[in-house]
Amino acid sequence: MLQALELSQATRLINHGPVVMVSAKAGGEENVMSAAWACALDYAPARVTVVLDKGAFTRGLVEQSGWFALQVPLAAQAETVLAVGSQSRKNNPVKLADCGVELFYQAGFDVPLVQGCGAYLICRLLPEPHNQQTYDLFIGEVAAVWADDRVYADGRWLFDSVPDELKTLHYVGNGLFYRTGKGLKVG
Amino acid sequence: MLQALELSQATRLINHGPVVMVSAKAGGEENVMSAAWACALDYAPARVTVVLDKGAFTRGLVEQSGWFALQVPLAAQAETVLAVGSQSRKNNPVKLADCGVELFYQAGFDVPLVQGCGAYLICRLLPEPHNQQTYDLFIGEVAAVWADDRVYADGRWLFDSVPDELKTLHYVGNGLFYRTGKGLKVG
Repeated sequence: MLQALELSQATRLINHGPVVMVSAKAGGEENVMSAAWACALDYAPARVTVVLDKGAFTRGLVEQSGWFALQVPLAAQAETVLAVGSQSRKNNPVKLADCGVELFYQAGFDVPLVQGCGAYLICRLLPEPHNQQTYDLFIGEVAAVWADDRVYADGRWLFDSVPDELKTLHYVGNGLFYRTGKGLKVG
Repeated sequence: MLQALELSQATRLINHGPVVMVSAKAGGEENVMSAAWACALDYAPARVTVVLDKGAFTRGLVEQSGWFALQVPLAAQAETVLAVGSQSRKNNPVKLADCGVELFYQAGFDVPLVQGCGAYLICRLLPEPHNQQTYDLFIGEVAAVWADDRVYADGRWLFDSVPDELKTLHYVGNGLFYRTGKGLKVG
């Protein structure tokens, strides 16, 4: 079940470098894409970066609405992550249905979220036209955060106790992911 | 043993979101710090981002020299990663020795590298003063790449066949890392 978290926990949800899905909505159009190139940028205010190629339909929705979400999928969703990262909404108007994506909304935010993920960060775009045009680099300030208490509770990921299908994913390329592995505590 | 790679493979080395160590040298001073917030930015030319706090000694070396390296440590180095990420060279002139860091250089580049890592990206800073000042965000263009053939060969990571101590690390916080886990091929 999803639990709302303090914004101070936002960066912890992506600190370990998982692949994410990026979602946005504008003019009645919703879309979702995958992105391995998303990263924490600041703790307070909580900020993130994400690279959105000029060919990506979702990029236009982010630019138009000024909002996007990053969500951290679980290993059970690997096929969906690859599918929404491979197909473009520009060529397939029913991409989300074809990829088996079910969307939902949280109260107060007109930003679509993908069912079944481990964590969600809704972000307001901080417009930086030079970064966006030159580097395809988008900066977001986190406005709300949730995590699924099956995989994240009491301020920590539960990777050492969840089954393989509830681990997060790290993307290499060509359809190859690695699951988040065993914990290693130092100090 | 280290093998030089094509620049086109640079982003693949950090695509799965591992923690990195950032090294730089200027005015005869060398330093190394850890960074969980490093990310690929572009394939061609190969570019990366990394967040360097204003309090970081290494940041000054990057700004002065215009060069830095990202290196991907292995699980055997977890204590070193935590140590160089916790201590500051500003307070400890012999930080690198205290942390057990041994440096080396590759021909043609005056950028120090940390012995024992799985992969190395030497990067030229692309100066972006607004990003650096406002967001602590630094952009580098990759100039040379090497990987250790114990862990990366024929264009791919070997995580499914290497022992635990040769896996890369994903950092959560408070000294807690997760090793890169089991592969999952889709499609």
